[in-house]
Amino acid sequence: MIQFSINKSYFLQALNATKRAISSKNAIPILSSLKIEVGSHSITLTGSNGQISIENTISANEADAGLLISSGGSILLEANFFINVISSLPEVSLDFEEIEQQQVLLKSGKSEITLKGKDVEQYPRLQEMTTSNPLVLETKLLKTLVAETAFAASTQESRPILTGVHLSLTDHKDFKAVATDSHRMSQRLLRLENATDNFDVVIPSRSLREFTAVFTDDIETVEVFFSSSQILFRSETISFYTRLLEGNYPDTDRLLVNQFETEVTFNTNNLRHSMERAHLISNATQNGTVKLEIVNQVVTAHVNSPEIGKVNEELDVEAISGSDLTISFNPTYLIDALKALRSETVTIRFISPVRPFTLTPGDDQENFIQLITPVRTN
Amino acid sequence: MIQFSINKSYFLQALNATKRAISSKNAIPILSSLKIEVGSHSITLTGSNGQISIENTISANEADAGLLISSGGSILLEANFFINVISSLPEVSLDFEEIEQQQVLLKSGKSEITLKGKDVEQYPRLQEMTTSNPLVLETKLLKTLVAETAFAASTQESRPILTGVHLSLTDHKDFKAVATDSHRMSQRLLRLENATDNFDVVIPSRSLREFTAVFTDDIETVEVFFSSSQILFRSETISFYTRLLEGNYPDTDRLLVNQFETEVTFNTNNLRHSMERAHLISNATQNGTVKLEIVNQVVTAHVNSPEIGKVNEELDVEAISGSDLTISFNPTYLIDALKALRSETVTIRFISPVRPFTLTPGDDQENFIQLITPVRTN
Repeated sequence: MIQFSINKSYFLQALNATKRAISSKNAIPILSSLKIEVGSHSITLTGSNGQISIENTISANEADAGLLISSGGSILLEANFFINVISSLPEVSLDFEEIEQQQVLLKSGKSEITLKGKDVEQYPRLQEMTTSNPLVLETKLLKTLVAETAFAASTQESRPILTGVHLSLTDHKDFKAVATDSHRMSQRLLRLENATDNFDVVIPSRSLREFTAVFTDDIETVEVFFSSSQILFRSETISFYTRLLEGNYPDTDRLLVNQFETEVTFNTNNLRHSMERAHLISNATQNGTVKLEIVNQVVTAHVNSPEIGKVNEELDVEAISGSDLTISFNPTYLIDALKALRSETVTIRFISPVRPFTLTPGDDQENFIQLITPVRTN
Repeated sequence: MIQFSINKSYFLQALNATKRAISSKNAIPILSSLKIEVGSHSITLTGSNGQISIENTISANEADAGLLISSGGSILLEANFFINVISSLPEVSLDFEEIEQQQVLLKSGKSEITLKGKDVEQYPRLQEMTTSNPLVLETKLLKTLVAETAFAASTQESRPILTGVHLSLTDHKDFKAVATDSHRMSQRLLRLENATDNFDVVIPSRSLREFTAVFTDDIETVEVFFSSSQILFRSETISFYTRLLEGNYPDTDRLLVNQFETEVTFNTNNLRHSMERAHLISNATQNGTVKLEIVNQVVTAHVNSPEIGKVNEELDVEAISGSDLTISFNPTYLIDALKALRSETVTIRFISPVRPFTLTPGDDQENFIQLITPVRTN
């Protein structure tokens, strides 16, 4: 029967990371549990919502953990409740002891709390994966890539494949991440130096956002393993599994054309604030659009709601070339796109009022491109 | 027709304070508006939800306001929307101009936003008050008093009078604030030196919490004016009106008896954390109580939930005297009471397992007293 003592803060940090995979309102009630497995030199915490699974390992070799294991075993505990109890304990360390079958006694200072648990046999078996030949990526790079693409995925279940981000590696070096909800698209290219087997997978964008929260900035690199149905991101202490989306991802390359009529470079933040003002009014209009007019090198934005009011604004421009143009679009797409850019300036290229326009960072025209579809207003 | 320019941040601060009286979901739709009245030397902003009304005056003499009035008038604007638009403007100052009847043009930098407003005649007339002979109180003192009592008022509308805080002045010097929801009570006494007429009013606790948010710590004193149906708190720039509750407040003095059998002094924070642990489990029990046992000068807390688990804890005690006792109560009441205390220690006095017990701050046994009713568990 389990018995160990551990540093409370260290334990809580691991518990909270694991909890990110656990939903208290799961269709499978047992998944609201946390699985605790105590071996002779480490503890493994497991949480899962059926889509994402997280395993967090606390090693007795890690000095900060203050982990002293007297006896091993395993148990399921209600995750939210257990974490609340642990965080309420008075002292810096706690004793965890299984006092009878599926019953745990927590001691800390003069406080003794007994909790009822469940048999680990009730917990579903997570799919195993062979872990050889990993793709090794910098955590920071991977998180940047998620921030640049995941927001553009669809939130509608009508075309499930579009709720994912399409990741592929071709020629053992050309890495591509792309997401689209059919109104906008965001694509990041990367050249990998020491890459492995080619792959072609679609990962739920929600899983990628959880990945970003779980892998903190102090984790330098992540190993990535692929199988036909899931993907595993692994650091020294954390294994993060997510199911893949099934189906063929649409061919997004055909949307990118290398021809344009008008090119404008803006200050990213100024343009974003202008669009936020426009959105306050466009939000109250029937089609929710802002109209951009480019006439004689001057760019103006216009929204008119007969009920609420209107916005007219001349936009600051860093550089401009090409033909005059009038185009309407939903400003929220442009706001989202600008939020994903880290460069000071952004170059927008227009073909015509009815063709998608592209955004590229002022400092990198090659590897990061976004696309927004306009709205026909008449 | 209105025309003025003003510093954006200063304007926003005043708008946000006024907005605290405005609910976007009011039964009277016009009350979602903000009233702007521009005189020759100042602007008055008014918001109201029918219970609370706030008038905020911005003077042209206030240097930070950067207020320059060209022409006066008045208009109603949708409050939330107007404030969002103002906060979105690009420059540090803005021009506000009424361009035609009930239509406002806002200019800031290259941005021009036109908003539709409404005729001020549609706005209800707020009740007038005669403002002579004020009671002058330190804002800080008044806010402390609210923090010490308002939480104990009822949130149930079954006895509306208990949703208020009872404020009274007797003998032109004895000030009392008391609130109770019939399970617990909190009472603060104050001796006022330069007080005015006696009063006896019941103010909705919700209004007092809004008062706390509106009167920031830089406002040193507040003038208080009374009428039969409302009360006015006034500083140099803000007038805060609230309706009073009608009816007789119950006689709470009879609840306070000066006799007890057991007296225990605790460290306030330690006791609070113990009760928070107890609450995690008591929350899952049928009667939601914690049991306190005092035996031979040792105080222990116990909760037992057959489904979830149990807590047993010895409580640290600073001083203890009197008979042994076992008493059960809802720990949330004790947690709330301890949160309202600013003293390092708290003295709790018990009479019997079925009689209310009192809490007083370790450093002030006279002027602040709280009372909690136990729960009979068998």
